[in-house]
Amino acid sequence: MQPPPATPGDPLDRVDTPALLVDLDAFERNLDRMAAETTARGLRLRPHAKTHKSTDVAKAQIARGAVGLCCQKVSEAEALVDGGVEDLLVSNQVAGGRKLGRLAQLARRARIGVCVDDAGNAADLARAAAAADAVIDVLIEIDVGAGRCGLRDPEAVVPLAQQIAAAPSLNFAGLQAYNGTAQHLRAPEERQSAIATAAEIVRRATTALSAAGLGCETVGGAGTGTYALEMAEGLWTELQPGSYCFMDADYAANGSPPDYEQSLTVLATIMSAPETGFAVCDAGHKACAIDSGLPRLASHPAVALTGASDEHGSIALPAGLALSVGDRLQLIPGHIDPTVNLHDWYVCHRGGRVEAVWPVTARGAMF
Amino acid sequence: MQPPPATPGDPLDRVDTPALLVDLDAFERNLDRMAAETTARGLRLRPHAKTHKSTDVAKAQIARGAVGLCCQKVSEAEALVDGGVEDLLVSNQVAGGRKLGRLAQLARRARIGVCVDDAGNAADLARAAAAADAVIDVLIEIDVGAGRCGLRDPEAVVPLAQQIAAAPSLNFAGLQAYNGTAQHLRAPEERQSAIATAAEIVRRATTALSAAGLGCETVGGAGTGTYALEMAEGLWTELQPGSYCFMDADYAANGSPPDYEQSLTVLATIMSAPETGFAVCDAGHKACAIDSGLPRLASHPAVALTGASDEHGSIALPAGLALSVGDRLQLIPGHIDPTVNLHDWYVCHRGGRVEAVWPVTARGAMF
Repeated sequence: MQPPPATPGDPLDRVDTPALLVDLDAFERNLDRMAAETTARGLRLRPHAKTHKSTDVAKAQIARGAVGLCCQKVSEAEALVDGGVEDLLVSNQVAGGRKLGRLAQLARRARIGVCVDDAGNAADLARAAAAADAVIDVLIEIDVGAGRCGLRDPEAVVPLAQQIAAAPSLNFAGLQAYNGTAQHLRAPEERQSAIATAAEIVRRATTALSAAGLGCETVGGAGTGTYALEMAEGLWTELQPGSYCFMDADYAANGSPPDYEQSLTVLATIMSAPETGFAVCDAGHKACAIDSGLPRLASHPAVALTGASDEHGSIALPAGLALSVGDRLQLIPGHIDPTVNLHDWYVCHRGGRVEAVWPVTARGAMF
Repeated sequence: MQPPPATPGDPLDRVDTPALLVDLDAFERNLDRMAAETTARGLRLRPHAKTHKSTDVAKAQIARGAVGLCCQKVSEAEALVDGGVEDLLVSNQVAGGRKLGRLAQLARRARIGVCVDDAGNAADLARAAAAADAVIDVLIEIDVGAGRCGLRDPEAVVPLAQQIAAAPSLNFAGLQAYNGTAQHLRAPEERQSAIATAAEIVRRATTALSAAGLGCETVGGAGTGTYALEMAEGLWTELQPGSYCFMDADYAANGSPPDYEQSLTVLATIMSAPETGFAVCDAGHKACAIDSGLPRLASHPAVALTGASDEHGSIALPAGLALSVGDRLQLIPGHIDPTVNLHDWYVCHRGGRVEAVWPVTARGAMF
């Protein structure tokens, strides 16, 4: 783990670069806003920790009413339980005996849920939980349009739910119905159509469960790009947005959701300015993920970097912006989740000073 | 830092996933091959540690005759010096007082070089080194065609070299002449033309230095994709390839260099197989970088993943390949350097068993 790039009390110009900067005022407004929206609808909020991988952020979300957190990996769940989070859903399939054993051990220390879309995997999970004398909540994942994991046939939930309900070490808790692709569709009508399709699939699954005499306490899903649509459908009971706490350039390009603020940037320093109108900063794609496009200048959000290699970000300077060696700039990442995963520390600031330095608790937790 | 995904002595099927696997036989053949090629030409080899970020790999390279290592960041240099490496070139500009101070302190413990392309930055560096009572080697970076850092006018090396030579805390050591873009050009003729252009620029710079009565002990540069061309030019004295130890799908697509073997893969587990001919593995782009294309199946190198999200890799299965939940597969990363940076451990194997587990010493070292 790298040493922190700043110390509480430092002015921002003392922060070493590249560094994740969190504007605490904007961050807290984002948390308050989502808490208020979900509370107003009477929905459970279970924010996704794959975005922030942080015990500090998780606790700030729980303090505002979140029922627990989602994560994608057993090792993320372990890190968050170690940090005091008591209710976690691994919103993903967990395969392999070593991982299932760890998940079952964790379920002795916290309320743990996981997703399943395969009968053999459900049987392995039941055995691992029984061996640890633990009980694990299980959501059956159904494919609601992304074509990734999840049962393709919504009626196929019935035999799998019956298998899970029959296992004393498992608790059939409902459905996982998340369309990751829909989060990033550019046009509002495309997102609306995708979630309408998802809702129809959820309805088929819950109808089949009900016909078989099986309850469905939880329907989980929704992300930052579509949660308003899932809320409006009235079928989802637990929302799982992640990015809303920090936001990124990809969501900004969609204009969705409105009112949430870019609270996280990557602070960089100009290391070379070898010709007029061009500069190179010290944040490349090892500091700012580029899977969803090149980062943008916070001072000029319409301007993206012109190139990013491992440790260099190239900038064709827009008119009116001159940058020399040693100057600082803030970048808006194209995609927040993998950007955070590259860093060991958040530098949290307010009023021009570093107020806190938070570890990225589960940075690199991929097991 | 995550706990290691395996223990020496484990069979490969016990390794937790996703994990970096190093085939030690292939890895050692790659190191031997580059050492032999450079020795045969009488050239100094300074492999680039930005690829591997590993003290163990660095020591294996030095044991085969490497004069030292390159790295891109002061924090990488610190990690490698802590691990016992005694000669490091930060093949990059270092800007900002905090970083320059650390670099100067490091130069009291090891031989340290750095690149400069700006008079103000050179003056800052000289002051930092003087304050630490240290001497730092300086290579002037010239742009040899990539259009990133480096002096645009090769004759402009003279006043900057004179400034550096006049500073008692700096040692003018020569030129940095690396074309990163050329490494990845697809056609051999394109790479040949790019390095011929680079050589012409180097010649102009060394001629200007010589006319001004300045020596040029070192001309550094060259990467895995073009080093044979720089060797043939007879101008470069120190080669800086990084990827040759592990290789990746991007270099394989270029067929350059021949004879080097893919020694590193990402081991993954199938976590969902929801329809015939399709499966999802537990390695997404938080486990395998996708900036240079999606990873390929080691068993079917012509087949790439069809999609990668943060923690999922989707695979349209080629004819004859069936994968079920729990099955393992190895992926060839599109780009090795940022892939390694996502992991905390190398799992090194030989003869079907884990022989060693090496930390990625400078993982996340971006300061």
